[in-house]
Amino acid sequence: MAQFMNSKEALVIEALDGLLRSSGGRLARLDGFPHIKVIVRNDWEKSKVALISGGGSGHEPAHVGFVGAGMLTAAVCGDVFASPSVDAVLAGILAVSGPAGCLLIVKNYTGDRLNFGLAAERARAYGIKVSMVIVDDDIALPDSPQARGVAGTLFVHKIAGALAENGASLEIVAKAAQQVIDNVASVGMSLDTCTVPGSPKEARIAEGKAELGLGIHGESGVELIDFTTARDAMNIMLERLKPNIGRSINVALLNNLGGTTPLEMSVLAEELAKSEVIDDIQYLIGPAPLMTSLDMRGFSISILPVSAQGLALLQAPVAIRDWPGCIQIEAPRIRPIPDGLTPIKSIPSKDPATANFVAHCCDMFMEAETELNALDAQSGDGDTGATLAGAARALKASIDQLPLADTTQLYRAIGLELSQTMGGSSGVLLAIFFSAVGDALSSGMPNVEALKAGLARVQEVGGAKPGDRTMIDALGPALDALPNGFTAAARAARQGADMTAQIVKAKAGRASYISEDRLRGHNDPGAEAVAKLFEKMSTISAS
Amino acid sequence: MAQFMNSKEALVIEALDGLLRSSGGRLARLDGFPHIKVIVRNDWEKSKVALISGGGSGHEPAHVGFVGAGMLTAAVCGDVFASPSVDAVLAGILAVSGPAGCLLIVKNYTGDRLNFGLAAERARAYGIKVSMVIVDDDIALPDSPQARGVAGTLFVHKIAGALAENGASLEIVAKAAQQVIDNVASVGMSLDTCTVPGSPKEARIAEGKAELGLGIHGESGVELIDFTTARDAMNIMLERLKPNIGRSINVALLNNLGGTTPLEMSVLAEELAKSEVIDDIQYLIGPAPLMTSLDMRGFSISILPVSAQGLALLQAPVAIRDWPGCIQIEAPRIRPIPDGLTPIKSIPSKDPATANFVAHCCDMFMEAETELNALDAQSGDGDTGATLAGAARALKASIDQLPLADTTQLYRAIGLELSQTMGGSSGVLLAIFFSAVGDALSSGMPNVEALKAGLARVQEVGGAKPGDRTMIDALGPALDALPNGFTAAARAARQGADMTAQIVKAKAGRASYISEDRLRGHNDPGAEAVAKLFEKMSTISAS
Repeated sequence: MAQFMNSKEALVIEALDGLLRSSGGRLARLDGFPHIKVIVRNDWEKSKVALISGGGSGHEPAHVGFVGAGMLTAAVCGDVFASPSVDAVLAGILAVSGPAGCLLIVKNYTGDRLNFGLAAERARAYGIKVSMVIVDDDIALPDSPQARGVAGTLFVHKIAGALAENGASLEIVAKAAQQVIDNVASVGMSLDTCTVPGSPKEARIAEGKAELGLGIHGESGVELIDFTTARDAMNIMLERLKPNIGRSINVALLNNLGGTTPLEMSVLAEELAKSEVIDDIQYLIGPAPLMTSLDMRGFSISILPVSAQGLALLQAPVAIRDWPGCIQIEAPRIRPIPDGLTPIKSIPSKDPATANFVAHCCDMFMEAETELNALDAQSGDGDTGATLAGAARALKASIDQLPLADTTQLYRAIGLELSQTMGGSSGVLLAIFFSAVGDALSSGMPNVEALKAGLARVQEVGGAKPGDRTMIDALGPALDALPNGFTAAARAARQGADMTAQIVKAKAGRASYISEDRLRGHNDPGAEAVAKLFEKMSTISAS
Repeated sequence: MAQFMNSKEALVIEALDGLLRSSGGRLARLDGFPHIKVIVRNDWEKSKVALISGGGSGHEPAHVGFVGAGMLTAAVCGDVFASPSVDAVLAGILAVSGPAGCLLIVKNYTGDRLNFGLAAERARAYGIKVSMVIVDDDIALPDSPQARGVAGTLFVHKIAGALAENGASLEIVAKAAQQVIDNVASVGMSLDTCTVPGSPKEARIAEGKAELGLGIHGESGVELIDFTTARDAMNIMLERLKPNIGRSINVALLNNLGGTTPLEMSVLAEELAKSEVIDDIQYLIGPAPLMTSLDMRGFSISILPVSAQGLALLQAPVAIRDWPGCIQIEAPRIRPIPDGLTPIKSIPSKDPATANFVAHCCDMFMEAETELNALDAQSGDGDTGATLAGAARALKASIDQLPLADTTQLYRAIGLELSQTMGGSSGVLLAIFFSAVGDALSSGMPNVEALKAGLARVQEVGGAKPGDRTMIDALGPALDALPNGFTAAARAARQGADMTAQIVKAKAGRASYISEDRLRGHNDPGAEAVAKLFEKMSTISAS
């Protein structure tokens, strides 16, 4: 089983109960559960127009997450990707409709249309005022007689919800909802399919490809396109939406289809804001998971042109956690960097031999990126190579700015550069090392002794001792052997690094969390990097 | 590239800018970006104790998502899973600390400890009052000298944040933070590893297995265990946390590690609430993504025993969207089902031959579940088999309650049963079919004519015509051939079903969204189900 569930039959039932238990009393379910899966506001008094939406589950937070004052009155839930029954919809209508009547907001799928439609008919026979709107915002298939209802549905919930909350009549609420439907357009893209509980996952979208124009039920997208960058993806989507842009105010809704990380969604928001394809989008809802497709690694954009009144309804506050609000897109605000932080730069000076030496060392780290990452993946998060290569790239790029002719200042400058460009513990520790070596040299200490002083400071701050499976296990022996030349130092570093593969009880750093058999036989990546550095230095000094 | 990004180097930088653009002016970043990635409250006036947290990115909404009144004043962000630099932390401290000083809330990782620690030292040299606490809530490795900081950090943010917001002194805020750290315990579990941007995904956890006791940086869990159900998973986790439970009030924080769907998280909340392993948890934060590990399909639980004052601080309102609140766990509230909905049950009667016939037909649908699902996956969401098998199971289970001796009532009863147990469009349409056949029979129409009347009503409501690639393409020919017996009907149904494989322009149902080459060569699952039913009926009637 690839999901945290007890059985696929009980998934939605147990999820709804879990949600109710953690709703703080805001929500209730109707009796008749689990055949009838209707979640209602617990504070509802039937004095206003009721809003009912729903459909298959698997689109969370839609629809239960939007039940609350200012949005939905009730959500009628089916099983995963399956419409609820007529009885369930009818129960929902009967439970929440008062004299003001109710509006059914239905996405354009045959099952939902049939079940909600027949329930509406049966409810009208009871004398209840029922209106129904069908959302069909998907523009992926321009010629389809049956455009799907996707994330644009949220605009309908919010605008109709705000009107109903304000006490508008059913006629006005339904008319406004239909107007949103007439104007809203959505399109989706995904890098991977969703995992339907209880079914094997379809490996449909190859690496480097994306599906464009896909729905929210795992069905294939209309087109398989090459995926390059977030920027291209966003621009392709906006190009499709361009004909649906309005003349004055346009609101974009940026929806996470489920499995996209917040980092990626924020990058997409940045690309949306910066795009020149559509430069008339002033307001944004999201990025957030709103109408998802289980764990689908994709996103959708919906665009709604609105009047000032429509915008006000979208911005009306609601006490619904899953509603991200509708905010004006703006440039990032910047606060000044505090005084005294800007470091004093050393004065650049030239020394071709030193420049060459430093450049070659930097090259070595760039070349070893993949290998060191792989080694680190055994014991940590696999970023040692990337961290070192990134710092090496930055150092090499700034080589002309270094005080190459002044060894003392050079150590300090490298320390400063590393402290600014290198994250992680290795970044600080190397910065401390280089700064301390510079300090020692400035006090007149000879070269090798100064390097050892740097190592001592690293041990003091970092807390690691020889034998703890860290870079110290290579650096210590190398410095001890350095008086005998680079070749001897390289040999000692290599021996020290290789010995770390036998140390399976790491006592410092991230490796200390890892089980012994994962560590055995793999060198510590930091020690390995030191060994590689000394090996490189011995070849440079020999050439 | 498996992520929506432009490059792994720009990922965090662009994500932060995207987040700022969509923050509605609540947040700003410090100058010095992107080397210095510090996000601060834009309304901060340094009149109270400042709270600074941060660390590597990839844990969203932590930490930027919790910047705001009542929680953090600033978040210092590193690259994905990499600590920010000393300079970045120092910039954050200098930017937000006033006379009341600041508290650094740091998770116990070497890099964060070093960078935040050295920055604190440097800030103190500027005369700033700085305290620092190290969160080490992970209990996965009981003997580790270096327990990791994970989702329990949120308790520290919230309690220290509420105190600082109330105007408490740095000493009091730091002491309360340390007290939370002394008492909080967390443990995590995952079904899959996370995808580190720019690195290939490690396929580490086999199907049917879960890692228990894992951190938030993709490192392996302490134990690989068998995964069976959400219930077992929850009880295993709670068993580990049992020694950390307090005597009076206990608050659980249920954290989505990133890739778990809301449905699954709600099931886990339900299991947490129902578990007998710990029956003293009265309050819940979540379920929600709070401290994630990119897209990791896992969750963690943190437990904090609190005093009444601690609970009040956890419940103090904040205007931070990503904070789910701290609510009292309660039983699901239930509202009565409205009058008039409970359907009138028909009077059961016996007829062994009919019972046998119905039971065999039900068996057929149960056996065909996988095959029909696979067929439906070609054109839809792969649930036709499951939907039909579910209804068949329910129908077979209620066979003794059916009016088996009264054909007219039997059709109506089956229609009613299907309308209650079967979701999706097929559920309604079959319910309509059986009800309409019952109505026709009751008006004295002969059998085959009544069945045709049922089909006509289905076409009328559903809107599908022959040749539209629906079950009608098998049912129509079968009913036409039925006067010649079941064998002839079965043959006609089979021919009609097989013909649907050639219909590549579906005009109704979900198949109408699918491209032609995905449909070609595959029978419509509804038509195939009808063909199978008639084939089964011909063997029953022949036996």
